[in-house]
Amino acid sequence: MSFTTLLILAIAPAIWALDNGLGQSPPMGWNSWNRYTCDINETVILNNAKAMKETGLLELGYNHIIMDDCWSKRQRDPETGKIVPDPEKFPNGLEDMIEKIHNMGFKFGMYSSAGKYTCAGYPGSLDYEEIDAKTFADWKIDYLKYDNCFNQGRSGTPLISYQRYEAMSEALNKTGRPIFYALCQWGEDQVWNWASTVANSWRITGDIYDSFDRYDIRCPCETYDCPSLQGYHCSIMNIVNKATPLAQKTGPNSGWSDMDMLEIGNGGMTYDEYLTHFTMWAVLKSPLILGNDVSNMSPEHLALVSNFDVIAVHQDVSAPANRIWKKPFVDSFVHLFSGALSNGDWVVAIVNEATVPLVEMSIPFSDIFFDNRDNAKFAWTAKDLWTKETITAARHLTVDVVPHGTQVWRLQKSTHNSHNSNYWTGHNTGHNAN
Amino acid sequence: MSFTTLLILAIAPAIWALDNGLGQSPPMGWNSWNRYTCDINETVILNNAKAMKETGLLELGYNHIIMDDCWSKRQRDPETGKIVPDPEKFPNGLEDMIEKIHNMGFKFGMYSSAGKYTCAGYPGSLDYEEIDAKTFADWKIDYLKYDNCFNQGRSGTPLISYQRYEAMSEALNKTGRPIFYALCQWGEDQVWNWASTVANSWRITGDIYDSFDRYDIRCPCETYDCPSLQGYHCSIMNIVNKATPLAQKTGPNSGWSDMDMLEIGNGGMTYDEYLTHFTMWAVLKSPLILGNDVSNMSPEHLALVSNFDVIAVHQDVSAPANRIWKKPFVDSFVHLFSGALSNGDWVVAIVNEATVPLVEMSIPFSDIFFDNRDNAKFAWTAKDLWTKETITAARHLTVDVVPHGTQVWRLQKSTHNSHNSNYWTGHNTGHNAN
Amino acid sequence: MSFTTLLILAIAPAIWALDNGLGQSPPMGWNSWNRYTCDINETVILNNAKAMKETGLLELGYNHIIMDDCWSKRQRDPETGKIVPDPEKFPNGLEDMIEKIHNMGFKFGMYSSAGKYTCAGYPGSLDYEEIDAKTFADWKIDYLKYDNCFNQGRSGTPLISYQRYEAMSEALNKTGRPIFYALCQWGEDQVWNWASTVANSWRITGDIYDSFDRYDIRCPCETYDCPSLQGYHCSIMNIVNKATPLAQKTGPNSGWSDMDMLEIGNGGMTYDEYLTHFTMWAVLKSPLILGNDVSNMSPEHLALVSNFDVIAVHQDVSAPANRIWKKPFVDSFVHLFSGALSNGDWVVAIVNEATVPLVEMSIPFSDIFFDNRDNAKFAWTAKDLWTKETITAARHLTVDVVPHGTQVWRLQKSTHNSHNSNYWTGHNTGHNAN
Amino acid sequence: MSFTTLLILAIAPAIWALDNGLGQSPPMGWNSWNRYTCDINETVILNNAKAMKETGLLELGYNHIIMDDCWSKRQRDPETGKIVPDPEKFPNGLEDMIEKIHNMGFKFGMYSSAGKYTCAGYPGSLDYEEIDAKTFADWKIDYLKYDNCFNQGRSGTPLISYQRYEAMSEALNKTGRPIFYALCQWGEDQVWNWASTVANSWRITGDIYDSFDRYDIRCPCETYDCPSLQGYHCSIMNIVNKATPLAQKTGPNSGWSDMDMLEIGNGGMTYDEYLTHFTMWAVLKSPLILGNDVSNMSPEHLALVSNFDVIAVHQDVSAPANRIWKKPFVDSFVHLFSGALSNGDWVVAIVNEATVPLVEMSIPFSDIFFDNRDNAKFAWTAKDLWTKETITAARHLTVDVVPHGTQVWRLQKSTHNSHNSNYWTGHNTGHNAN
Repeated sequence: MSFTTLLILAIAPAIWALDNGLGQSPPMGWNSWNRYTCDINETVILNNAKAMKETGLLELGYNHIIMDDCWSKRQRDPETGKIVPDPEKFPNGLEDMIEKIHNMGFKFGMYSSAGKYTCAGYPGSLDYEEIDAKTFADWKIDYLKYDNCFNQGRSGTPLISYQRYEAMSEALNKTGRPIFYALCQWGEDQVWNWASTVANSWRITGDIYDSFDRYDIRCPCETYDCPSLQGYHCSIMNIVNKATPLAQKTGPNSGWSDMDMLEIGNGGMTYDEYLTHFTMWAVLKSPLILGNDVSNMSPEHLALVSNFDVIAVHQDVSAPANRIWKKPFVDSFVHLFSGALSNGDWVVAIVNEATVPLVEMSIPFSDIFFDNRDNAKFAWTAKDLWTKETITAARHLTVDVVPHGTQVWRLQKSTHNSHNSNYWTGHNTGHNAN
Repeated sequence: MSFTTLLILAIAPAIWALDNGLGQSPPMGWNSWNRYTCDINETVILNNAKAMKETGLLELGYNHIIMDDCWSKRQRDPETGKIVPDPEKFPNGLEDMIEKIHNMGFKFGMYSSAGKYTCAGYPGSLDYEEIDAKTFADWKIDYLKYDNCFNQGRSGTPLISYQRYEAMSEALNKTGRPIFYALCQWGEDQVWNWASTVANSWRITGDIYDSFDRYDIRCPCETYDCPSLQGYHCSIMNIVNKATPLAQKTGPNSGWSDMDMLEIGNGGMTYDEYLTHFTMWAVLKSPLILGNDVSNMSPEHLALVSNFDVIAVHQDVSAPANRIWKKPFVDSFVHLFSGALSNGDWVVAIVNEATVPLVEMSIPFSDIFFDNRDNAKFAWTAKDLWTKETITAARHLTVDVVPHGTQVWRLQKSTHNSHNSNYWTGHNTGHNAN
Repeated sequence: MSFTTLLILAIAPAIWALDNGLGQSPPMGWNSWNRYTCDINETVILNNAKAMKETGLLELGYNHIIMDDCWSKRQRDPETGKIVPDPEKFPNGLEDMIEKIHNMGFKFGMYSSAGKYTCAGYPGSLDYEEIDAKTFADWKIDYLKYDNCFNQGRSGTPLISYQRYEAMSEALNKTGRPIFYALCQWGEDQVWNWASTVANSWRITGDIYDSFDRYDIRCPCETYDCPSLQGYHCSIMNIVNKATPLAQKTGPNSGWSDMDMLEIGNGGMTYDEYLTHFTMWAVLKSPLILGNDVSNMSPEHLALVSNFDVIAVHQDVSAPANRIWKKPFVDSFVHLFSGALSNGDWVVAIVNEATVPLVEMSIPFSDIFFDNRDNAKFAWTAKDLWTKETITAARHLTVDVVPHGTQVWRLQKSTHNSHNSNYWTGHNTGHNAN
Repeated sequence: MSFTTLLILAIAPAIWALDNGLGQSPPMGWNSWNRYTCDINETVILNNAKAMKETGLLELGYNHIIMDDCWSKRQRDPETGKIVPDPEKFPNGLEDMIEKIHNMGFKFGMYSSAGKYTCAGYPGSLDYEEIDAKTFADWKIDYLKYDNCFNQGRSGTPLISYQRYEAMSEALNKTGRPIFYALCQWGEDQVWNWASTVANSWRITGDIYDSFDRYDIRCPCETYDCPSLQGYHCSIMNIVNKATPLAQKTGPNSGWSDMDMLEIGNGGMTYDEYLTHFTMWAVLKSPLILGNDVSNMSPEHLALVSNFDVIAVHQDVSAPANRIWKKPFVDSFVHLFSGALSNGDWVVAIVNEATVPLVEMSIPFSDIFFDNRDNAKFAWTAKDLWTKETITAARHLTVDVVPHGTQVWRLQKSTHNSHNSNYWTGHNTGHNAN
């Protein structure tokens, strides 16, 4: 039997993931890297935190402020061996900034690497796990992103990578402080097979970039099985295709595949493409970590990442949706995703990867409910989570999707059927059955 | 020289597999998972055992009742370190249930995992091999299915996986009780190259599902060489294609490739597809472990799994049949399997994977007897093991196979030739030669 | 720089292979397996040895008599721990038989496996290397074929395989007796990268079978890089295609890729196919080990394996020929091989893998002498090593090759050029230049 | 986050590569192997050094004289354990020759192998790292090329290879002498992921040969991910295609992918092909190590490798150019490379791999500045680094490239824009915008 078989069962109380009480739903928040790379300091981070609060994003659940690479001095303290925050970037000290962030109501996320150096060449935590975990806990961090650069050849088999990441897991546990442990190991060495007992989430690809589907040679692999160069400049469809078969390995009881921080607002994609980006990250249960300048966010993009209905799917205590099929369509593909939610509702997403509109495609319930065939017999109330339109459908759902766009529906058993979920009070404004 | 070369030789008395006296033929029985997953208890298991006996399946050889995952409490006994049966599921205790099962004439199969947890998150036996083997032997189990979830990164090379499974092998041997040891390691790390000296059978794929040939992204590999994600939702033709090249690694003197439990009776396939499922599992010598609700089995399905002639092929002390060829046919393929039985008879199976009938295909004896060319010179009495029709054939066999169906023949040297086998007294009802 | 670069240089006196003084040229001889598998005994082996001598094969260089698997009892001697020869098969004892073989002028080859068992289930030498090497040396063996079955998971990385085979290498060296050490490890774990410092030859594929090019699922890989199932039933063209890129790793100073024993005389191929089989094994410098019943060999097949000119190429102290190209031809391919010999001559072979004749194909000297461009300027005397016809050619060579056949030429710089080699006194019977 | 993301940032002062103060730019020089293989001696090396100086190549930056394999006796000194220079090849001793080379103004490069033997069978340094590093430092070497032959199975996982190369790294560091450490490990075991913390450069392919794009079976892999046989006879386009995705792993702060020594002047390619060879090695930041007989170099070839503008790109303290795209063109491909230089200029190279001219291809600035989109808005002064012609371009660049040739431009922000770089004083001789 495979662990994966279990994910469609609803055994909510069992926890056999890393046992630190965190991660029943994938985390949300903001991270400095995509927009600022190494140009970070107290001002940048506090300004974004304030913007996160003022825009209401904190209240919607984006409650982590994560500082990425380049926060320390180039050398450890020669006496204590500790990593030292850069006093020019943090003139009031890191602890002061973290306290301010906590006081705003956020959790604070720290960054280090399971290597000799971080990716930007600052001191890494490899072989310094205990001292660094203790330092981080003393600073009251709540989340650790733990990278993979300069790992001294300690990769290439699952066991050697496991041991490298387990060392920090144990060091964090020893501190007694609950710290969400986010591996950034890029999907090497079958991380999906072993991460759940040492971590809360795990990256599964090279770094994202702000493009819908452009091939870039710096991200040479097209599938999850990428033996030796995960790279960077991976487009969002590249990441979706890699994440889909691995969705079976994640869920409330194990932990989360991390598809990397969001690019929404950084300017490389259209609104429809960002909508696909956001929707796919939500239904595949990736952490939703913003990666833009929140203080200069357009209303359109702010509204996009504030979609309560999509966030509700993301935060629902359930496994990711499953890709039922991927079918050729004109110059590309259409994808159907479907997944059960904890109250018996279902989420259904249709991605149009092509450059022409998908018009009135009829999707049979036998496809949508492939993983629970009995459901196909019922009528369902379907709410389009972007247009908010609600219809009643039986036997099939008819969809129209713009180029590079995604339509996502939440399906509730129709009041014509007996049911006991009540996610929304549907005003049926249409009827989609024949 | 390759071990595999030996399989077509008949050196019956030699045993160089795991030396526990078990497994001369692949096991038969019933397992709780496919139908009940975690919804098991004493009633479910005893009811199925009773049905197995009352339907005559026990007498036909289905003599193992195997309880799968989810039978224990979430925590080991803090004092003894032992796994504790769930008292709500087994109010009279596991030992009482096992005794009842033994008294009905069955052997009892237990389940655990070579990981920190079982796949459903119950205590696993990794690093608890001795205490658990002792506990299981005290409970008088006869069979152990040993899974692969949550293995703490101890996979990725043959040696590391071997050592993890060898630990339980040695622990079981130490108990002194003969226990059939069934690896459920999904075919990682070339298990076919090393399992035979530590185990009696070994799974070679991700989990089966109840479909003839549907591609499902959760079972992403199409061949036996699947480096990093065996997955689940593998269709029966997916499993047949993976098992076929590995058939060379199994036999009475080594042990058995396990193609996973049967789905017959669970509702996802047609009768003809289930017939192919059952026939292929038999001729490829996979364990035949039912996975349905036996107490509610249709007469048609009961008859299917009760086919004495097919079971006789399965239980014959010989190596699996070999796929002679796989040829394109309309929208799919036709497969020819052929193998020698211990008394000199041969089994021949033709699978029509396509959606149209295969009509009067003539299969030359030079194909059927590819592995023993002398046999092609003789006339053979051929019995269709499903229709029970018997004909005499020379030089070739003419077959008709329904879509998704399989025709399987047992060939005995015709009485026109000299021979000394006597599997059946053939009443030749036709003549198929030219 | 790569080791392989060196092979086209002529540094004859240096030996940096296994330093036991053996293997300047690939070995020749006879082995019991292909024809007799486990049906061996003193009579079979001595009869073949006698036939080898009487037919003149010994004198031609076939000077090893190698006994393969199945020669011992099923259990080691419980007191001494030694492997015990089967007294029924060898009523006069193995040492007696070996002495007779030595007295006929042959060297004697023994068989064991780097596993718990041999492939046929007899005691293997894994973890018994010292005692077995000592026993074998006491019996005065001259050659050890060392197989790979039942290796207890000790494979999957180069180092673990290396250590397993190095153990016997050191044990053999300790005995003080020069013993040609022939790995039969099937080409796993990049054996070509590490074998030369521990062994004299190394198998690079699964087991051969007696077919020119039939695909058989039991030999699933089509290239040398076959990660997890070498299998058996590999056709000769399957083996040629695997051996060709690896030819760069062999030579007089390192050791030899072993393409497995010959099938000539076992009945599965035509004369032309056997001619290709023999020629390719010779020009690629595989050991030439007969695998048939020599006492019942047809005159045609005996003549085939007695071709002195082809044997002279094989025994020449030089690296294997290189495949210059493989070009599509009708339903298959034509291959051009070319290689320098130690006296300045060149060997050129053209394989017609297709089922139609290759007629008057002109092969430019710029292809033939691709690895030594200066040579293309000269005229060359070319002898067809099968028809014995000799011509003088300049700028190109015109070839005609029957289906599945091979034409092989030895080229000597024409007397019109200055040169100092003198392999033959050519009577130019034709002229092939324009 | 990936290390690779950092390469487009300009953090010049940080060094997190091997900390020996060397390798801010890739090295330049001359090596004996490609032209002389084992036929080396004091005369050959000193003559080439003198020619390097007299031709002005030393002054242009080619300041390493590297002696490759075959310089020692076949055996170490039995008393001291040291490798002993061959007294016939170096009658005045190696130290004398090295001193002469130093006195001419060169650095001296030595050769050894992380194996039992060097590739040519001379003593290797595996397990002799400390004694050999000490010997080499005593001889005052400045550079060590460290090969991979005969490594005793110590490869196959990143860690085992890392440890083998780290041993010499530490031994070199211990000597106290700064020695550029150049791995010649052929790109096995993901060397690009771990080399930078132990070495200054690392080979990423099998050995080069003097051909533009001919497929040769001795170099069987077509991509960087080549699991088991790097081989030799790799054409320059084969190497370019392998190096391109790995360019992300190199830069001033980490170290350099080594694409092998140059073949310019050895006769196998046309002038245009050599121009592509040289340009690609420069823009991809491979070490530029000549491999010909410098004392007999044609003026045309000497001029080619003396192109100051191309060398300036190569020596600029910046990361390699990135391949923006590779597009089908007639019978092959066109490649666009683009990269930022340290002063804000950009280098752009267009390779025409096809056999027909590329005529007036318009390349939009949105492609050229794909990695820095703001730049596309400006006008740029573009200098063709081969013709020295300078134009001003906006929005796009129009290129004409001969078959197998390369056009390479250095772009400086036009004086119409504000900028502060001043690489050249451009006399705009054309205008290329619309």
